[in-house]
Amino acid sequence: MQRIAMLGSGFIGRFYADSLHGQRSRDRVVAIYARREESARKFADDYGCSFFSTDMEEVIAHADVDMVCIALPNNLHEAAVMLCAKHKKAVVCTKPLGRNADEALRMMQAVEEAGIFAGYLEDLCYTPKFLKAMETVKSGGLGRILWAKSRETHPGPHSEWFWDKEQAGGGCILDLGCHCIEIARNYIGKEVRPVEVMCWAATQVKPIDAEDHAIALVKYENGAIGQFEVSWTFRGGMDLRDEVMGTEGTIWINSFLRTGFEMFTTGKGTAYVAEKAESATGWLFPVGDEVNELGYNHMFTDMFTAAEAGREPAETFYDGYVVNAVIDAAYRSAQTKQWEPVRLPVWRGREGLTQESTLVDYDENHYLIKEEITHDGRHKLILKDKATGRILERDLI
Amino acid sequence: MQRIAMLGSGFIGRFYADSLHGQRSRDRVVAIYARREESARKFADDYGCSFFSTDMEEVIAHADVDMVCIALPNNLHEAAVMLCAKHKKAVVCTKPLGRNADEALRMMQAVEEAGIFAGYLEDLCYTPKFLKAMETVKSGGLGRILWAKSRETHPGPHSEWFWDKEQAGGGCILDLGCHCIEIARNYIGKEVRPVEVMCWAATQVKPIDAEDHAIALVKYENGAIGQFEVSWTFRGGMDLRDEVMGTEGTIWINSFLRTGFEMFTTGKGTAYVAEKAESATGWLFPVGDEVNELGYNHMFTDMFTAAEAGREPAETFYDGYVVNAVIDAAYRSAQTKQWEPVRLPVWRGREGLTQESTLVDYDENHYLIKEEITHDGRHKLILKDKATGRILERDLI
Amino acid sequence: MQRIAMLGSGFIGRFYADSLHGQRSRDRVVAIYARREESARKFADDYGCSFFSTDMEEVIAHADVDMVCIALPNNLHEAAVMLCAKHKKAVVCTKPLGRNADEALRMMQAVEEAGIFAGYLEDLCYTPKFLKAMETVKSGGLGRILWAKSRETHPGPHSEWFWDKEQAGGGCILDLGCHCIEIARNYIGKEVRPVEVMCWAATQVKPIDAEDHAIALVKYENGAIGQFEVSWTFRGGMDLRDEVMGTEGTIWINSFLRTGFEMFTTGKGTAYVAEKAESATGWLFPVGDEVNELGYNHMFTDMFTAAEAGREPAETFYDGYVVNAVIDAAYRSAQTKQWEPVRLPVWRGREGLTQESTLVDYDENHYLIKEEITHDGRHKLILKDKATGRILERDLI
Amino acid sequence: MQRIAMLGSGFIGRFYADSLHGQRSRDRVVAIYARREESARKFADDYGCSFFSTDMEEVIAHADVDMVCIALPNNLHEAAVMLCAKHKKAVVCTKPLGRNADEALRMMQAVEEAGIFAGYLEDLCYTPKFLKAMETVKSGGLGRILWAKSRETHPGPHSEWFWDKEQAGGGCILDLGCHCIEIARNYIGKEVRPVEVMCWAATQVKPIDAEDHAIALVKYENGAIGQFEVSWTFRGGMDLRDEVMGTEGTIWINSFLRTGFEMFTTGKGTAYVAEKAESATGWLFPVGDEVNELGYNHMFTDMFTAAEAGREPAETFYDGYVVNAVIDAAYRSAQTKQWEPVRLPVWRGREGLTQESTLVDYDENHYLIKEEITHDGRHKLILKDKATGRILERDLI
Repeated sequence: MQRIAMLGSGFIGRFYADSLHGQRSRDRVVAIYARREESARKFADDYGCSFFSTDMEEVIAHADVDMVCIALPNNLHEAAVMLCAKHKKAVVCTKPLGRNADEALRMMQAVEEAGIFAGYLEDLCYTPKFLKAMETVKSGGLGRILWAKSRETHPGPHSEWFWDKEQAGGGCILDLGCHCIEIARNYIGKEVRPVEVMCWAATQVKPIDAEDHAIALVKYENGAIGQFEVSWTFRGGMDLRDEVMGTEGTIWINSFLRTGFEMFTTGKGTAYVAEKAESATGWLFPVGDEVNELGYNHMFTDMFTAAEAGREPAETFYDGYVVNAVIDAAYRSAQTKQWEPVRLPVWRGREGLTQESTLVDYDENHYLIKEEITHDGRHKLILKDKATGRILERDLI
Repeated sequence: MQRIAMLGSGFIGRFYADSLHGQRSRDRVVAIYARREESARKFADDYGCSFFSTDMEEVIAHADVDMVCIALPNNLHEAAVMLCAKHKKAVVCTKPLGRNADEALRMMQAVEEAGIFAGYLEDLCYTPKFLKAMETVKSGGLGRILWAKSRETHPGPHSEWFWDKEQAGGGCILDLGCHCIEIARNYIGKEVRPVEVMCWAATQVKPIDAEDHAIALVKYENGAIGQFEVSWTFRGGMDLRDEVMGTEGTIWINSFLRTGFEMFTTGKGTAYVAEKAESATGWLFPVGDEVNELGYNHMFTDMFTAAEAGREPAETFYDGYVVNAVIDAAYRSAQTKQWEPVRLPVWRGREGLTQESTLVDYDENHYLIKEEITHDGRHKLILKDKATGRILERDLI
Repeated sequence: MQRIAMLGSGFIGRFYADSLHGQRSRDRVVAIYARREESARKFADDYGCSFFSTDMEEVIAHADVDMVCIALPNNLHEAAVMLCAKHKKAVVCTKPLGRNADEALRMMQAVEEAGIFAGYLEDLCYTPKFLKAMETVKSGGLGRILWAKSRETHPGPHSEWFWDKEQAGGGCILDLGCHCIEIARNYIGKEVRPVEVMCWAATQVKPIDAEDHAIALVKYENGAIGQFEVSWTFRGGMDLRDEVMGTEGTIWINSFLRTGFEMFTTGKGTAYVAEKAESATGWLFPVGDEVNELGYNHMFTDMFTAAEAGREPAETFYDGYVVNAVIDAAYRSAQTKQWEPVRLPVWRGREGLTQESTLVDYDENHYLIKEEITHDGRHKLILKDKATGRILERDLI
Repeated sequence: MQRIAMLGSGFIGRFYADSLHGQRSRDRVVAIYARREESARKFADDYGCSFFSTDMEEVIAHADVDMVCIALPNNLHEAAVMLCAKHKKAVVCTKPLGRNADEALRMMQAVEEAGIFAGYLEDLCYTPKFLKAMETVKSGGLGRILWAKSRETHPGPHSEWFWDKEQAGGGCILDLGCHCIEIARNYIGKEVRPVEVMCWAATQVKPIDAEDHAIALVKYENGAIGQFEVSWTFRGGMDLRDEVMGTEGTIWINSFLRTGFEMFTTGKGTAYVAEKAESATGWLFPVGDEVNELGYNHMFTDMFTAAEAGREPAETFYDGYVVNAVIDAAYRSAQTKQWEPVRLPVWRGREGLTQESTLVDYDENHYLIKEEITHDGRHKLILKDKATGRILERDLI
């Protein structure tokens, strides 16, 4: 059992608490910190916390607290982590870890020096579909991974601090791109170094300083390409999709808008409003169990099991720092309009990888380019002469 | 925490144990009964049970056991329940409750007389999508429910006893129809009496005595219609779909084959085989977290929470008995080729319901049949004259 | 080139004319009959017809007319066909052919005696998807067909006469069931005799005398089962789906609501209203080219090519008559609550078919029931002993 | 009626001829040019052409020929167009128009100087779904277009010349990107200037000199972003998807792999192989009527109607030239790793566009960022103070 201090009583803090109390049904949020007392008190009432305060350190240091869960605006993560390190409390921190890689690196070093458990709450790398897909990828079902896309687009976040560049550190790249980057990195392989990033970002619609729409490519050392698409200006709900392509297969995952649950309602019958949808009538696409489908349950189970077993969770502060470094490169690229290198002063993966060849020999003298059965029943080969480089067709009879 | 005795070490027993150990992560299967000692021993090893035996009563009566989970062939349910009643052990029983309503009624009466907790393991009434859909239906989002369909078709069950009419009590109606009937009954309202059943059943493909394909209609007292389609001869995997239609809306749920997870594999890269699919290459449709998507997690959570709180679970032996009574009528109907009444010697729901009128007045003299905006921009009404019964069109300008 | 007289200037007449003028772009509607002169004149203007009249016979007999297209309420089909026979004009007639099999049989006999070309405008047996699916079924891709379902549900028809039992001859069974029956009959094989029907029908919502919702099973002589689901009370648009199941495969076709075209609109940007949808905002599901997707183009191409080549079209008055006979049985069954025989005084297909056996020998002594690779890697067989009938499991190693 | 000379007897020439003969059923391919006499003769036999030759000019100049259809490898387009200009024959040319913008510009200028009809065969801008989506976009249903993606990926082309960089002029960018670019350009508005391109391209799998995978962003003068994803290394069939996002809505189109037609087959029943699929068993996704769904029918209808009416078709050589110019920029960008300007020596659209503001005033002092109804029933606004730029939350009561 874990006795948890929640830092932050907003949307994500409540989502976390729902999962924490629901999933293993023996962990408890015992203390809550919020900036405003009335928010802290309300949260404490709602979730049965025995202690609440507007003094963050008091909450972290409280004797009943085993583990601290950071659910605060981005600009407060570092200070909260430093207090956890000071008081030697296990800590799990919401995404993104920092507003930039410098912050993230300091957090990582602080928890490592303090010797405390630290987990990075990257929930979308814990969804049931993601976990199953990763099994397939790891078992080789897709062959060599060539391309991993991830997309998160919706009409914009819930709380005001997201829209403020100083508190958030950026716009939809930090808020949503952090998910997409880590998803692609898992599929391509965490040991493979992300080397450079090309990013387009724009403020297309919203009256804000940060970007509300961005697309980026992340090149990995082994030639694989990661891709993310993020937007706060998408209409139609929350679109969460991943696509992974390899030499031997493809995986498409839809985590929210099209999951086999479709509903039409005239709205006459009821005051019911489907969650997160942009409309309450017509065709709606609810999700069965949001907390589970978004990965919270499997995430906290991994975090607590890891903490109890003295092992690392699947997503660590190191991972958070690598993600921040990729995001930093994306922001630089959006400015310079160049491919920008990913700066990783600490790198614990592999070095010097090159693109693996997957040339297929057809015979001694030819590579196989393609084999196909056409409309008219031809069994056709397209070959390349190894010596001359000439491309030729050949029919199998 | 629940200390559970599992009766049966087969496919479903293992599925249950995976959910039991995984979900709340504090309940344990402590004892296992199987007919063959080697099966019992293997299960005990795999799941860490401290006790195993081929003597069912010994397992049920064991002092460490709080709750008995029946995961046996249908013909052994009654005897197992009677032993639970004798030893005053809480009991949860897999579906269908009995091979027929007589068996089911005796089981229900036995647990009620013994005063023990009893739950009916109808997992498909606990899937995340079903629970969410039920919320909408209960809140009136679909208006009055007119039609509830449920379909379960696949290429046939795993264990040999299913295919034996004596042990199973029947074919795919008992195996799969029990799910569909209870799903429709939930949507239409458990308090509404199922009055008669028309069923077609055939042995279309398999060399067995029981039916491998059936379709039935279940008429409810309030005019709503339930429908089930079940097959052991379907090709393409396990197709689990529900459709609910009401005066104000529609819900479509796909619980297995199309859930937003699509995968193509050449099969060259790996020996991986996707679960339950009929093929291991080409397009496959895995499910993220089967145990959760099939409802096992939410089911056991409800069962144990109910047992601990001293309340009834959402699915009781009474429900299992009603389902068996509908199935009995279906089997009779398949024989007599008539609508057969559902015989319910015990009925605890409402009586004397009639079809609710949903006529819509357009004005004092007319009912509204339909309002429509057509291609060419007409805003058209179809009305019925209350006095003459004549149908007329009228354009709104 | 065909010079066509259109009888009827309503919704379906215009739909037909759009297809006729668009598809081969050389056929012309030259004359139009409507009951009201202003409707006839407007249609003539819109489609460039040189002749219009409220006298049906005058239009049919007009010297410029090669072919008559009947797009009238059901109660006027017979009279129109008789006039075509009298004036020896080729005729194509909308669905259903008659209000009942007696009418349909008289029409069939009239055109055959007159020796004129006659085609049955069953458009849903000409959709691109249906035609492609039929190729697969005919080539054996699904093995022996066991079960063919077809469903058409929507919120009700456009014109007032549909809602009037005298003019229409019935409700949604006649209007929509005629499609579903012929679709299933094509898949199962037109040469196979439909023998009996079980039908449930009800007036669930609308203030009308006819049924607004029905479900039926049609048993074929070879053991195959046809199934239709029709409703005028469905909410969410027009749902057109077919499902065909055989011993070796499955086909699912969605012809309208889910065809790979999805759209969300706030409705703020425009006055645009998507066709046939029940709402103009939120998620909508348009169809690319309705006239083509609903089969009109391929239907008229077949009709005219057949007429020009002196051969029969794929859908004839004989087919229309068989469909009416099945519908008659459905209506009787809804009354008697019995399986009702399909009365076919004229039958041109095969006789005396029985269910084909598809038992699979495993070895000399056993039938194969099922072969499966389970979770834990077992390669498992379920067999039946030919002599004893006993079911057994065997593992392949 | 059009009397057509087909240049090229390969895969695409046959696809075109199928559409030409099928659609209006009065146009005829009367002459065929192929490089090898046996190919020309076979094509002439198959399609009933009265004339065939291996001399291109002879075919073009033939007295019976009204219109020339170029279905040749990319390196032969220019020479063919020049001969059409010389002989004043109307011409339609397959995509891409040239191997680069210089070739394309010369072709455009030649036909304009010759005063002949010229059409660009960009079929994917004529699919039924595309045409319908364009209607919605033009009517404002999506508001201001922000982002238009198009994706075409498959396992590689059919003929050997595609794989040869000299004949094809490049790899999948030229072959597939040309579609995607023109699709996005239509959605964003043909009058809006594409200004710069960022492209990543790689040879990931195939033993070829050209790219087999590429992703690019195309920036338009008004701030809209076009995006394309193309691959010859995708596994699973041909994936054709477009996504358009605007301030008021979203459109998703799937043109091939998920169109509401799903099929499972064991492959035991038949030798049938579904077209273009990578497998012949398991789950397959056929397309109802390929020639129609891929836009060929509507394309040729537009071309011939335009030629007969003396107007321009929807897709002209000018459009082909703009597409080539964007492709040139993409290839330069893949080399320089910079955003590269689109060089358009001839530009006939609008100039000097800027991003349209869509700021929404909430009141005199605030912009509206977001309005939302949250879980707990709050009706929440996120606003921006116009004077201070501060972001704030406000609840509506």
